[in-house]
Amino acid sequence: MREFRRRIYNFCAGPAMLPTSVMEKAAGEFLNFKNSGMSIMEVSHRGKLFDQVLDEALALLRELLSVPDEFEIAFFSGGATLHFSAIPLNLLKDGESADYSITGIFAKKAMEEALRFNPVKKIYDGDSHHYTEIPDLTDENVSKEAAYFYITSNNTLFGSRYPTIPMIAKAPLVADMTSEILSRKIDIRKFGVIFAGAQKNIGPAGLSVVIIRKDLIGRSKRTIPVLMDYGLTVKNKSMYNTPPTYSIYMAKLVFEWLKEKGGLEVVEKENEDKAKLLYDYLDSTSLYSVPVKKPYRSTMNVVFTLKDKSLEPKFIEQADDRGLHGLEGHRLVGGMRASIYNSMPKEGILALIEFMKEFEANA
Amino acid sequence: MREFRRRIYNFCAGPAMLPTSVMEKAAGEFLNFKNSGMSIMEVSHRGKLFDQVLDEALALLRELLSVPDEFEIAFFSGGATLHFSAIPLNLLKDGESADYSITGIFAKKAMEEALRFNPVKKIYDGDSHHYTEIPDLTDENVSKEAAYFYITSNNTLFGSRYPTIPMIAKAPLVADMTSEILSRKIDIRKFGVIFAGAQKNIGPAGLSVVIIRKDLIGRSKRTIPVLMDYGLTVKNKSMYNTPPTYSIYMAKLVFEWLKEKGGLEVVEKENEDKAKLLYDYLDSTSLYSVPVKKPYRSTMNVVFTLKDKSLEPKFIEQADDRGLHGLEGHRLVGGMRASIYNSMPKEGILALIEFMKEFEANA
Repeated sequence: MREFRRRIYNFCAGPAMLPTSVMEKAAGEFLNFKNSGMSIMEVSHRGKLFDQVLDEALALLRELLSVPDEFEIAFFSGGATLHFSAIPLNLLKDGESADYSITGIFAKKAMEEALRFNPVKKIYDGDSHHYTEIPDLTDENVSKEAAYFYITSNNTLFGSRYPTIPMIAKAPLVADMTSEILSRKIDIRKFGVIFAGAQKNIGPAGLSVVIIRKDLIGRSKRTIPVLMDYGLTVKNKSMYNTPPTYSIYMAKLVFEWLKEKGGLEVVEKENEDKAKLLYDYLDSTSLYSVPVKKPYRSTMNVVFTLKDKSLEPKFIEQADDRGLHGLEGHRLVGGMRASIYNSMPKEGILALIEFMKEFEANA
Repeated sequence: MREFRRRIYNFCAGPAMLPTSVMEKAAGEFLNFKNSGMSIMEVSHRGKLFDQVLDEALALLRELLSVPDEFEIAFFSGGATLHFSAIPLNLLKDGESADYSITGIFAKKAMEEALRFNPVKKIYDGDSHHYTEIPDLTDENVSKEAAYFYITSNNTLFGSRYPTIPMIAKAPLVADMTSEILSRKIDIRKFGVIFAGAQKNIGPAGLSVVIIRKDLIGRSKRTIPVLMDYGLTVKNKSMYNTPPTYSIYMAKLVFEWLKEKGGLEVVEKENEDKAKLLYDYLDSTSLYSVPVKKPYRSTMNVVFTLKDKSLEPKFIEQADDRGLHGLEGHRLVGGMRASIYNSMPKEGILALIEFMKEFEANA
C-alpha cells in the first residue's frame, strides 16, 4: 500500500495530500481506536477517548506555534470562509471600520464579505500588477478609524506571501494563514487574530482553527450566530455543539508528526529548501516563467506559466500520467501551480523537476 | 478486525456507531480511493473524483427520502446548531415571527437562538410533564403571524418523537430531524425545510444536510453570513467554499448501505422491530421504567431509568464491561439511554436485553 501511494505526488492546492505516515497511522486505527473496539469517528465527543484527543490537539498546536498564554485557541466547523464573516461580526461594533490589504482573491473575498456587515476599507490592492508583489506594510498604512488590520499572509492562487509578517501597532493584525499555517515560525504576539482552514497544512476539509488574543474576545457585543461566536466557542473548549471530531483527530496526528520532525524550525528549513529547488529550476529555464517577483514568492504555492501557453494542457496531462497530480492553476487564474505544503516530500519536488526537464527537452 | 468490532455495541447518542460494512469499505479504500493512489480525503473538491462522490451523495439522499423536484438538497459544514441560527436568518424578515413547539432541549435551544434574531413564539412546552408526551399539532396551533412552524421531530435527550409528522398548512413546517432522519418514511411535501446534523444516521460529525422547498429560498432578503446562506449554498452545489469532503464521502457510503438494505421501508420496519424488542422488555420488568408515554416513544433513542436510582452507576459500568458502551443518559437528563440508530444491529439489542435480564436477576 505504501509503495502504491508513494507513486502519486499530489500538488493540489487543497484539500491537499497529508503526510504518508499520518495517513498510515489513521488507516491502522480506523476501525479500532486505542483498542476500544470503536473508531474515533464513532465515539461521543463528551467521552474520555475524544476529550483526550481534543486536549492533545489544542496543546500540540499551542506548543508548535509557541502560542503565549494571552491567546486562546479554538476549532470551528467550516473553513476559512466562515471567518470572512466571523471576523467583522466578532471584532467590529455596528458601523465600525477596519483595513484590508488585498493581495489576492481570498483577501478580496474576505473584504467583500466584511463589507456586507461593516464599512471596511481597502488600503492596498495588488490588482494593478496582477498580484505579483506584496506591499511593505507599516503603521503608516493603518487608517485612524481601523478597529483591525487584515492581511492574507500567503496567497494560494497567485503564489505569493508576506516575506515577513508586518509589525503593526496601531490596530490588531488579523491574518488568514490558511495556506501557510505551520509552515514557518511566526511571532504570535504580532497578531490579534490568526485563522486558518485545515485542508492545506492541518488536516481534512471542514475544520478551521482560530488563535485570538484574549482581550479581543467579545469586542463587538453583537448578536452573532452561536457557531461563529469566538467567545462562546472558546468558553466551551470548541464544543458548544458536536465538533468535527474526526477532523480534529486527524489534525492531532498531523501536529504529532510536525513535533516528531523537530517542530517549525526544521519544517521551515525544509520548506525553504523544497521551494528553492523548484524556483531555482524554473528561473534557469527559458520555457517556464514565474510571475511573482522573487522576494514575495510563496514556499507553499509555486505558481508558474509556460511561455508558450498552448503547451499548458499537454504539460498538465503528461504530468498527471507520471503521477504528478493537480498541477493546473486555479480556475480564476490559469497557468500552473505546484502546491508543496508541509506534507509534500522533497522527492515529489525532484520528480516534478525531472519531468519538467524532460518536457522542456521535448517542447 | 471485524470480529473485534462486533464485540462492542456503541449506544452513544452521537457521534454514533456507523454500519460495520461502511466502516470496512472506508478502511479498505482509506489510503487509495478507486485506484487513484490518493485518499478521497486528499483530493481537490473541484476534481472529478470528489465531484462524482458529491453527485452520488445528493442523488442517493434524494432517492432514499423521495425528495420531490420542488425541493433542493444541500450539505453544510457544522451540525444542526448552525441551522438554529440559519433558519430564522434565511426564513424570517426583520421583525417577523415564527412558532416553536418545545418538546425537548434542542427545540428549546433552537428557539432561544432564533429569539436573538426575531420575536419568535413558543406555542407548546412539554416542560410541565417533563417532556413525556408529544402534542397533537394541527393548523389550530399555528399563530396568525407565524412565517414558519418549528418542530424537533425526534427528541434525542428525552427519547420521544412525533408518532406522525403534523400536517400543517397555514405555515411552512420546519423540522430538525437530526436524530431520526432516514429512520422512517416521511412525506417530504409536508415540510418547508428539514435539516439534520450527520452524526447519528448519516456519517461523521461536522456535516449537516438541508432539504428546502425552492420557494422558501431567499425569503428573508437579509444579510446572512455566506456559509449560512441556503440560497448561495444551493446555487453552488454545496461548494461555495471547500466542503467537508471526507464527511460527504462517508455519508455517501451510508446512503449506499441504506439503499442496498432495501431503502427506508425496510429500515423503518427494522427500527420498529428493534425498538419494540427493547420497550417490550423494559415494560415487562419491575426494575426498569420508561418515562415517555407509549405513543410517543422514539425508535432511535430509548430512554429508561432504574426504579432504584442508586443502582444506575453500577448498571452503566457493568454494561460497559460487557461491551455495551455509552448507555448513560444525557448529562442534563440523567438516567440511561440506548441510542439505537439505523446502524445498531438487532444483535446489539439482544445483547443489551440479555445483560439487563442478568442485572435484574442480581439486583
